[in-house]
Amino acid sequence: MRVIYREELDAITQGLEQMARLADSAIGRATAALLDVDLDLAEGVISADDRLDRLQRELEDRAIAVLARQQPVATELRTVVTALRISADLERSGDLAVNVAKLARRRYPDQAVPAELHATVLEMGHVAQRLMAKAADVIATRELTVALGLEGDDDAMDDLHRALFRRLLDDRWQHSVESAVDIALAGRFYERFADHAVSVGRRVVYLVTGAHAEPFPPGVAD
Amino acid sequence: MRVIYREELDAITQGLEQMARLADSAIGRATAALLDVDLDLAEGVISADDRLDRLQRELEDRAIAVLARQQPVATELRTVVTALRISADLERSGDLAVNVAKLARRRYPDQAVPAELHATVLEMGHVAQRLMAKAADVIATRELTVALGLEGDDDAMDDLHRALFRRLLDDRWQHSVESAVDIALAGRFYERFADHAVSVGRRVVYLVTGAHAEPFPPGVAD
Repeated sequence: MRVIYREELDAITQGLEQMARLADSAIGRATAALLDVDLDLAEGVISADDRLDRLQRELEDRAIAVLARQQPVATELRTVVTALRISADLERSGDLAVNVAKLARRRYPDQAVPAELHATVLEMGHVAQRLMAKAADVIATRELTVALGLEGDDDAMDDLHRALFRRLLDDRWQHSVESAVDIALAGRFYERFADHAVSVGRRVVYLVTGAHAEPFPPGVAD
Repeated sequence: MRVIYREELDAITQGLEQMARLADSAIGRATAALLDVDLDLAEGVISADDRLDRLQRELEDRAIAVLARQQPVATELRTVVTALRISADLERSGDLAVNVAKLARRRYPDQAVPAELHATVLEMGHVAQRLMAKAADVIATRELTVALGLEGDDDAMDDLHRALFRRLLDDRWQHSVESAVDIALAGRFYERFADHAVSVGRRVVYLVTGAHAEPFPPGVAD
């Protein structure tokens, strides 16, 4: 393979990893903004999302340029096609972090998350970051064991999501309907963020093995 | 262009149009299931989604085969890359219809949508179908005026979504927290369905003009 071609493929992979690191950081900061009622932090997450969007466009243009100029086949073709799909997952993950930050902004200076749910939401933020950090590693290393391990972390997210809904729909819910709606939406944003990280892992499995992973059960997709 | 190559590209376009017609039908039936409390209809939407998933895989495999065998450039390359992205939008639209059907199933035999919100949800279903029917037409005809017109229908969906939330967060809300959460999630499913139809239109604009349309405002993406 020509050196220049190898470099183009590497640049695509590095761009994806960078996007994943930005998404990881974004969901971490969005969670802090939500729980600490920090408007500046929320605004920062919202405005920083431009960078992820720009990276996605650049990556897409670069991928199409490689397809046109190098006419890759086999593994290289799969690398480029997979990069297009992973970049879409990561761009959308950034949007979900923005959605969490916007919840914080909308309720400011009120606390959107009732005190008794802080620990659950904090944990959802941690799991989301852990998933996205692993997705970034999988992009860089293509290690199948790490890619497949993402499913386990996603189970943890599903458990947290269910716990959140149980509290919400409990007869003892003392807070407003508005608050319940906020929490339900936040729960969905975290769950979807996790799904996209898992999806990155699945796409890398496809890249390495050439086989499609099983699709998501329809209910979790969005 | 060789006849066989032209036929392969046409088959991809036809597959996309078929997916869009299925998504249109799915959201229509899911809305009926939700509003008419029809469990059989809900189950039908849920089980029919397999077909959309299968079509997406076939389309993806076909697109990659065309890239490998024909090494397209220029418009043909954009056609194939755009098809990959459109198929992802349509597959996800089907999942959103499933999510609506699952809401109906989860509350059965109860009515998930309070009577005073029936008209709004019914209208959201109609707008969703209209958007997806137009997206199917845009796939088949590549007419830019229709593609750009999708944004107007999406504004109608945003208005309905806002109206739904106003009712939900009104002090006069007489229904349970569970019901409020259901409605909030349903509203989001319809809004996201509409976003994906608009996204199809934008991708066709990209295909025809080679220029990226403006990205979605981050708040609406998922």
